[in-house]
Amino acid sequence: MSNEICVFEWRYGSREMRELFSRKNILRTMAEVEVALLYGLAKVGICTENEAKKVEQIIDKIDVEQVNELEKKLGHDVMALTVHLAELSGAKYIHYGATSYDIIDTAYAILFSKALKLTKQKLKTILELLISYSLNYKDLVMIGRTHGQHALPITLGFKLANYAYEFSRSYERLCELEKRLVRIKMAGAVGTMAAWQDKGLEIEKYTSEKLNIPPHVISTQVAPRDGFAELVSDLAILGSQLDRLALEIRELMRPEILELAEGEAVERVGSSTMPHKENPVTAEKISGLAKVLRGFVITELENIPLWHERDLTNSSSERIVISHSLLTIDEMLDSTIRLLKTLKIFPENMEKNLNLTRGLIMAESLMVNLTLKGMPRHKAHELSMAIAREAEAKNKAFYDMAVENNIVKQYFNTEELKDILNPGKYLGSYSQLIERTKDYVTKVISSCV
Amino acid sequence: MSNEICVFEWRYGSREMRELFSRKNILRTMAEVEVALLYGLAKVGICTENEAKKVEQIIDKIDVEQVNELEKKLGHDVMALTVHLAELSGAKYIHYGATSYDIIDTAYAILFSKALKLTKQKLKTILELLISYSLNYKDLVMIGRTHGQHALPITLGFKLANYAYEFSRSYERLCELEKRLVRIKMAGAVGTMAAWQDKGLEIEKYTSEKLNIPPHVISTQVAPRDGFAELVSDLAILGSQLDRLALEIRELMRPEILELAEGEAVERVGSSTMPHKENPVTAEKISGLAKVLRGFVITELENIPLWHERDLTNSSSERIVISHSLLTIDEMLDSTIRLLKTLKIFPENMEKNLNLTRGLIMAESLMVNLTLKGMPRHKAHELSMAIAREAEAKNKAFYDMAVENNIVKQYFNTEELKDILNPGKYLGSYSQLIERTKDYVTKVISSCV
Amino acid sequence: MSNEICVFEWRYGSREMRELFSRKNILRTMAEVEVALLYGLAKVGICTENEAKKVEQIIDKIDVEQVNELEKKLGHDVMALTVHLAELSGAKYIHYGATSYDIIDTAYAILFSKALKLTKQKLKTILELLISYSLNYKDLVMIGRTHGQHALPITLGFKLANYAYEFSRSYERLCELEKRLVRIKMAGAVGTMAAWQDKGLEIEKYTSEKLNIPPHVISTQVAPRDGFAELVSDLAILGSQLDRLALEIRELMRPEILELAEGEAVERVGSSTMPHKENPVTAEKISGLAKVLRGFVITELENIPLWHERDLTNSSSERIVISHSLLTIDEMLDSTIRLLKTLKIFPENMEKNLNLTRGLIMAESLMVNLTLKGMPRHKAHELSMAIAREAEAKNKAFYDMAVENNIVKQYFNTEELKDILNPGKYLGSYSQLIERTKDYVTKVISSCV
Amino acid sequence: MSNEICVFEWRYGSREMRELFSRKNILRTMAEVEVALLYGLAKVGICTENEAKKVEQIIDKIDVEQVNELEKKLGHDVMALTVHLAELSGAKYIHYGATSYDIIDTAYAILFSKALKLTKQKLKTILELLISYSLNYKDLVMIGRTHGQHALPITLGFKLANYAYEFSRSYERLCELEKRLVRIKMAGAVGTMAAWQDKGLEIEKYTSEKLNIPPHVISTQVAPRDGFAELVSDLAILGSQLDRLALEIRELMRPEILELAEGEAVERVGSSTMPHKENPVTAEKISGLAKVLRGFVITELENIPLWHERDLTNSSSERIVISHSLLTIDEMLDSTIRLLKTLKIFPENMEKNLNLTRGLIMAESLMVNLTLKGMPRHKAHELSMAIAREAEAKNKAFYDMAVENNIVKQYFNTEELKDILNPGKYLGSYSQLIERTKDYVTKVISSCV
Repeated sequence: MSNEICVFEWRYGSREMRELFSRKNILRTMAEVEVALLYGLAKVGICTENEAKKVEQIIDKIDVEQVNELEKKLGHDVMALTVHLAELSGAKYIHYGATSYDIIDTAYAILFSKALKLTKQKLKTILELLISYSLNYKDLVMIGRTHGQHALPITLGFKLANYAYEFSRSYERLCELEKRLVRIKMAGAVGTMAAWQDKGLEIEKYTSEKLNIPPHVISTQVAPRDGFAELVSDLAILGSQLDRLALEIRELMRPEILELAEGEAVERVGSSTMPHKENPVTAEKISGLAKVLRGFVITELENIPLWHERDLTNSSSERIVISHSLLTIDEMLDSTIRLLKTLKIFPENMEKNLNLTRGLIMAESLMVNLTLKGMPRHKAHELSMAIAREAEAKNKAFYDMAVENNIVKQYFNTEELKDILNPGKYLGSYSQLIERTKDYVTKVISSCV
Repeated sequence: MSNEICVFEWRYGSREMRELFSRKNILRTMAEVEVALLYGLAKVGICTENEAKKVEQIIDKIDVEQVNELEKKLGHDVMALTVHLAELSGAKYIHYGATSYDIIDTAYAILFSKALKLTKQKLKTILELLISYSLNYKDLVMIGRTHGQHALPITLGFKLANYAYEFSRSYERLCELEKRLVRIKMAGAVGTMAAWQDKGLEIEKYTSEKLNIPPHVISTQVAPRDGFAELVSDLAILGSQLDRLALEIRELMRPEILELAEGEAVERVGSSTMPHKENPVTAEKISGLAKVLRGFVITELENIPLWHERDLTNSSSERIVISHSLLTIDEMLDSTIRLLKTLKIFPENMEKNLNLTRGLIMAESLMVNLTLKGMPRHKAHELSMAIAREAEAKNKAFYDMAVENNIVKQYFNTEELKDILNPGKYLGSYSQLIERTKDYVTKVISSCV
Repeated sequence: MSNEICVFEWRYGSREMRELFSRKNILRTMAEVEVALLYGLAKVGICTENEAKKVEQIIDKIDVEQVNELEKKLGHDVMALTVHLAELSGAKYIHYGATSYDIIDTAYAILFSKALKLTKQKLKTILELLISYSLNYKDLVMIGRTHGQHALPITLGFKLANYAYEFSRSYERLCELEKRLVRIKMAGAVGTMAAWQDKGLEIEKYTSEKLNIPPHVISTQVAPRDGFAELVSDLAILGSQLDRLALEIRELMRPEILELAEGEAVERVGSSTMPHKENPVTAEKISGLAKVLRGFVITELENIPLWHERDLTNSSSERIVISHSLLTIDEMLDSTIRLLKTLKIFPENMEKNLNLTRGLIMAESLMVNLTLKGMPRHKAHELSMAIAREAEAKNKAFYDMAVENNIVKQYFNTEELKDILNPGKYLGSYSQLIERTKDYVTKVISSCV
Repeated sequence: MSNEICVFEWRYGSREMRELFSRKNILRTMAEVEVALLYGLAKVGICTENEAKKVEQIIDKIDVEQVNELEKKLGHDVMALTVHLAELSGAKYIHYGATSYDIIDTAYAILFSKALKLTKQKLKTILELLISYSLNYKDLVMIGRTHGQHALPITLGFKLANYAYEFSRSYERLCELEKRLVRIKMAGAVGTMAAWQDKGLEIEKYTSEKLNIPPHVISTQVAPRDGFAELVSDLAILGSQLDRLALEIRELMRPEILELAEGEAVERVGSSTMPHKENPVTAEKISGLAKVLRGFVITELENIPLWHERDLTNSSSERIVISHSLLTIDEMLDSTIRLLKTLKIFPENMEKNLNLTRGLIMAESLMVNLTLKGMPRHKAHELSMAIAREAEAKNKAFYDMAVENNIVKQYFNTEELKDILNPGKYLGSYSQLIERTKDYVTKVISSCV
């Protein structure tokens, strides 16, 4: 752990995801596929079950260095592994009738299944955190911003419910992806199962049952790459959504705004010389890694148009992009969980900012309410505008200006007017929308684990 | 039609898809959304149904030039349209309580619904063509190629069934996408429905019913952009799959191979000076356009992380990317249909190429059959290799060499050997796999129209 | 102008750039190349100069509709043009020995030359505006921000000088690109000039002289596509830089910050109901279009690996990407010029924000000055930190706390301390750096027009 | 070396390039920057030169594990290094007045300088190989292919000269890039050099001299990121060019064509069971890795628009993209060198393929020569076409048909006709073009080392 090149070796990614894509585990997973195939072969009578058991027993003894050495000699990675397994176990039917990508793509299916499970678990934690925040801060009023400018009031709960909805759509996508991506490929050199003569479909069936993963309906030498592209694309979409949340926090943490803050930053900085220097470095890391994911999509899209029954150009690129994209999202999800768990909320600044325009953001409410009281809409519009302008001109609050207006007085008393110009009362159906979101998200995460 | 800049104005894209994304139809669709909203407002008693009918009646009279003029004056596109509609119809409640993106994003939902329908119809035609080819050419044997090199025999039907399976996965994706993408957004300036006070959810419901499109569960000022990114990403995946088929044809049309050919090219060239010059220009166009789609994915992914309750940076880019990506896939699908319908197939060249290695591709079959007859696997392997080498050395066919081999003779008579070395008999479960694919694809295209 | 699909037909792009990439002008430019080639052919005696003059005379009479009709008949765009030119002029040697891409790629070279000139002119205007702002606001102090947090003081002139430097690097890139991109390709079907026998190099030379553009050193059927990729990549880099400036303005225009504002927005909104709603829509458009450019890079990169002496897959994609990327940057440059020309600057808010931390940002300055007066560095650090903490704890300004500190008093009198804690005095070499930048930028824009 | 995640740790990349981007060397390089800064500080009298020497002496003793531990404690990578250096050396002025990115970006400049040198050396080797092949095979005639179809004859030397020209343009780009990319950034927290008071420019000058790298003209907290984007973009262009060469070899190695072959493949397979199975795996790896590079461009383009005086979102993404893109190109260059050095050439197949159309590719030559002999062009065209058609109809060679034609006889005797229809005589200016390319490439690689 001292002279690595790649940050995923030591800096980014959880222990579990790193282990999943470590060389050792990849080789071990490939060995598991060889074992499952041997069980399949045994079921149709090509070999005895003992062959499978022999390999199963030595699976913990795979020696990566020795496989490396064999690969150098043989010039072929899967062949190196099968020779190594044969040497260790004494089994004779390893890899019988299979092509390398029967093993590699089926191993990918197993790894994807596990990696997606991990990813969805973390995403579920985030969804639960967001829903919980949405409910806890359902009524904490703050300004809604469009174009970076003040628009109308919302609540913090409402803001975060939007993220919950958006992220749950990614959860849904990952669930739907699985049926296309997590499939074994066990069909020989060009997909016809020729080397197994008329036993191919049976062997595929038993291997599939052993691994508890359904097979591809048909294949070339490899599983179709649209599934891989869909995976990376789904991760890039999710990553861009996490980027959006990180961006939200980075922006709201600006000292001039300071409505939310990265908790760890606040703590780190509480003890340092420059108390104003609280950097949202975790959120910035998330935004940074989203850019990496977006780039990876291109690589996997380009892997779809392989030649005929396949060419090898997907191999080198997937060696980089697959592990790196799953590790990238993993680091982003863990960081987002930490970010949410330690999030600092500054209600007083929300209130301060809400009043920054001294009530001008409530001009629309006055207009709407005058209309509802029967004033023609264009008159209501004119009046509200006139009051707003006067408030600006005289540098007064909108309420102070409105309350003294003779026409307004005819429609509303001061209590009513206060109500109308209270941002906390101009939130429409926010509460039901949050509930609707909670129900939707709950349904999504319970419908697929 | 003489001085355009963009090829989608005149060269690429079907009439229907072009009309869908023409300015006139976009404005018309936005007007339809305003009408639906007016019905919604009428249902909750804010205005009379007559308001909606007034606008409905003048919807054919929208004048793009006048809207242009108004936009120049007002500096706002949606405002220009609503003023124009008000002037034409005399309706007073147009756009009441709505924000521009209630109209734009709901219009997008309508356009997406129609564009996806068109796209799926064309994709379905392609799937049906591929299945039909798969069945018709189920038994037409040809060489399967990996790395561009000869691997094992397949059949043309088997090859094309793979494309059917792959494309059907895109069909499935487009079906699943719809529930996330085709949703109205009708929730006001920041998504709270504030201007409609406590009537927002009802108005949304009635507008949704009128348009027959469900609403987003919650929203900011805009519909969440992950759906847009998913759309472009799904199109890029489908486009890359069409690229793969086009690439297949371009490669197999090389004069040295000539197993398949673009029919139009053959016809065009039949009448020209250089009979050898048959260019697969339609297939090349498909491959070319796939590159454009892959690039567009980046743009839409970057549109996901909008600020707070939205910023406007998605607007300019979507004005380009959305129509252009749907028109690009449209041109690609139409071209693929034409390509398939006029595809030329050269069975004699398939046979010629199959025999290019003079039977060496069948060495595996000999080995497998010897093993099945009881010869130890490593002996069978050694023997097959020795015969293959001798055939090469003496420049003879593999069969000629094998038939004279004394050990082989002990296992097989000449008839049996011919059978074993017949590429047409070494196709494994190709037939059942084609059937399985036909069933799968049929299920997919019938499960979502 | 009422039913277009593409926004570059009417909404985005300057008149000049649109004209450059209109069908009419593209055909006309191709005709100019045919004329130049005819002059070349005449010089080597293959035809008379009169042939060239005949075509030159009818170049204004090209009828796009008729070329369209011919293309439908002939199935070939360049052939359609040459037939049309022949019919109009009566010339007999048009296109003699040339391949379509001799004409298309040479026409691209002419269009690129003009488009780059336009682009550089606009970029130069921006550079001059930025330098002028840098000098005018050289001393206007504001807070420098890193991570969105307050760091140390800078000046507005210093901030903008950074943009000038960055943009000038793009100017430099565009200048260097030209020698690789703006080259004629006049070498026949596979680049050997075979149809011109031993006259090819001479014909190329005279055609090149006529057009005043050097030839490619060698070529296949087409000019090498790395130049096209470099163009789009350079535009995407420049676009991302313009995005950075737009982002700067969008952020600094937030109402909580309001140090800069989009002037047009301020004016537009000055007359509306909601005076607080000033949207930076021009800056947002710039940021939005940058995303489109980034996507286009992928498409052109993928056009580099063409097959052998070329395949056609670059054609369809370039028909979209080349014009659209140059028009995109054009719209962005014009928008940036407008943005800069009408930029609003709020010095009072800069001062307000500078004092937001009540002097904590100057703690580093105190430390540095104590060190320079001889206090050991770690002692100076401790002291400054202690004062900062006390200021925070007591909610006092840093100066107020420091001025009462007994140790500080031993080093500085109040005047000195004021000086030390004056942000305007803690600007290092900002002035010389601005000068250095001005000189550098001036040199860059004068070294290549 | 047994449980890595990233293939650049063990599979891809040369020893030198891996060492360059190993953690140890990155830390060491950063330490060298700290040393250079100390020399700068000493020159202006802030500290003694002994400070610099103290650190210089312990530079080999940097312990990555200890830096790791410190980073965990301090939560800051550069701070961890400086504390470690201080502990090892006892120096007191390390990092005085600097910000982290003064060190990181200057270290990047050093690493870039070395990595580009390595890259250019390897590219130079490729250019020399290509030029040498071009000259050696200047006259080896083969068919030129457009659209994958036979066009006109070229020579192998001519084909490869095109690659030499194309690659030399990348060499040129890398040379031009250096002056923008390889620059130190030594200007403190926001680029004003404030902490060094009026000594900043001098310190920058001396540090720059010590490292022998010029400084950026002006900067924010970081060096401008357009240079980084240009680097990755230039690498992706070069990578796509290498992809084009790899694609050429993969295609020409198809068994139906077999004009070129990956030598290692031929050797590997020479000794195996399936002699027909020679896979161009090295070329396929090159094509595969090009896809990764194209994706990385997006990430770096997105790093340009950083906030204000910088945000941190470039940090995490550059940690991945910078080392990985330079290691990717490194693996591709080494693979290309090997590919070229062991390239197999099959002149007999080139001849066979050249004759595949039995002379139809020479119809143009007959027409041109008839025209030059005075036959009106349209007559010559008609005649050639008629002969071609007859040849096809009767399944005869074009020459056999032409030699018996009575009109042809009037113009040419059999010797002349053979000459005219000899592909080796229809090569235009190929020889001078190869010479011109050699001269150009030689100039490029000698003009910048």
